[in-house]
Amino acid sequence: MTLETVPTTPRELRSLIRQGEWRGTTAGLAPNHVQANLVVLPRAQAFDFLLFCQRNPRPCPLLEVLEPGMAEPSIAPGADIRTDIPRYRIYRDGVLDREAEEITDVWQDDLVTFLLGCSFTFETALMAAGIRLRHVDEGSNVSMYVTNIATVRAGMFSGPLVVSMRPIPQTRVVKAVQVTSRFPNAHGAPVHIGKPEAIGVEDLGKTDYGDATAVLEDEVPVFWACGVTPQAVAAASKPPLMITHAPGHMFITDLRDEDLAVV
Amino acid sequence: MTLETVPTTPRELRSLIRQGEWRGTTAGLAPNHVQANLVVLPRAQAFDFLLFCQRNPRPCPLLEVLEPGMAEPSIAPGADIRTDIPRYRIYRDGVLDREAEEITDVWQDDLVTFLLGCSFTFETALMAAGIRLRHVDEGSNVSMYVTNIATVRAGMFSGPLVVSMRPIPQTRVVKAVQVTSRFPNAHGAPVHIGKPEAIGVEDLGKTDYGDATAVLEDEVPVFWACGVTPQAVAAASKPPLMITHAPGHMFITDLRDEDLAVV
Repeated sequence: MTLETVPTTPRELRSLIRQGEWRGTTAGLAPNHVQANLVVLPRAQAFDFLLFCQRNPRPCPLLEVLEPGMAEPSIAPGADIRTDIPRYRIYRDGVLDREAEEITDVWQDDLVTFLLGCSFTFETALMAAGIRLRHVDEGSNVSMYVTNIATVRAGMFSGPLVVSMRPIPQTRVVKAVQVTSRFPNAHGAPVHIGKPEAIGVEDLGKTDYGDATAVLEDEVPVFWACGVTPQAVAAASKPPLMITHAPGHMFITDLRDEDLAVV
Repeated sequence: MTLETVPTTPRELRSLIRQGEWRGTTAGLAPNHVQANLVVLPRAQAFDFLLFCQRNPRPCPLLEVLEPGMAEPSIAPGADIRTDIPRYRIYRDGVLDREAEEITDVWQDDLVTFLLGCSFTFETALMAAGIRLRHVDEGSNVSMYVTNIATVRAGMFSGPLVVSMRPIPQTRVVKAVQVTSRFPNAHGAPVHIGKPEAIGVEDLGKTDYGDATAVLEDEVPVFWACGVTPQAVAAASKPPLMITHAPGHMFITDLRDEDLAVV
């Protein structure tokens, strides 16, 4: 099955994924629907992590948090968070233990599911505004960097902000700010525009995650808070068990991108 | 000391309150600065309440949540949440035990402080847009009603949404929506416009909290989610201890109203 032949509704896509018929990334699937980052933690770490998200809404925009043990989000009725993502990562004591295609076997009644907004939403909005994204055109991963900006600590969780970078034509930078400001629940407005060294990024060619992207003469590097932050921060605090989606393999919700727009 | 002679900076006002020199309501104090609702709960109920706020952002817009035992908010450096509010209410098992002018004597190391956005912020914005508010003109309390709209349950917390109502001239209703939409962290856009009976309010003359307000011929009753909701819901679940501000006696933060604007 290819991007051209898959169904386009979130419900059909989740069903296909549950049946094991789609294990690829979810980029480009279910156009105009919100995709989400997944973080699952035991109840014992959940208060601190919820607080961390509340204090750091740019990198950690909460779409939904489920009750301990619950697996059906209200933003995706009928879904099961344990089977409806193409690929998972299971961390133990902060270290990647293995990847998995479902997590029913490691599920516990005390696990709390966090669904966080994803940059796909604001990228769709940028492209709808006529702003081309080079990493999309090139079919590569967005460039990501660890910055010298600290997140706000919450209990056991702390660490540096991770950002994604997109080269934006000088003439479209204002528009890029306006368009992404409408989506605070998908990382929102940029956290930094221009000089990479001002936020501790010495060499744009050396990414911490993802692929390098050329920044042309008439372009400005624009930086947004990145959904890798909560995963990196959570892993650094070494909870006994943490489950996330695998990069690019997101949870597809029934929400439309416009549902997240603030005005 | 009167509204005309008090200092205008948040820091000076909090100091005055701490010294016991201002015990009145905080309406009109520190113009253009954000005032906050207070809810304090033991750690054992804090995860459920944080989840409740996350799921019900219109009535419960979180400005800040402190670590257990901590009393100095980052949105009010130098402040002490136990002494810097003119009047508190102490609930035990969901019942009002007493009012107090400070809460240092009942403070415990496991108490978690929640600061929630307040309608003063969007009322300032409405008035700045030339929309007069009758309850302000009349010096009375805003009209509040319990609706038939359920909040989204979170653990032990559930209950009906409480709304405030302001009569808005028919020609300014759209503007009122636009202006308040900019402040989701101060209850945001209205939850209902027009027919009170559609949300379970049978008689506007019979308020559940606050004073009745006349709605004139060319006006529409417009309803916003109200900060009384979290207090009513929290009290209904009968936590062993809950501390709030007394109605109208808010916590004055260093944030400016514009800091809460989304765009």
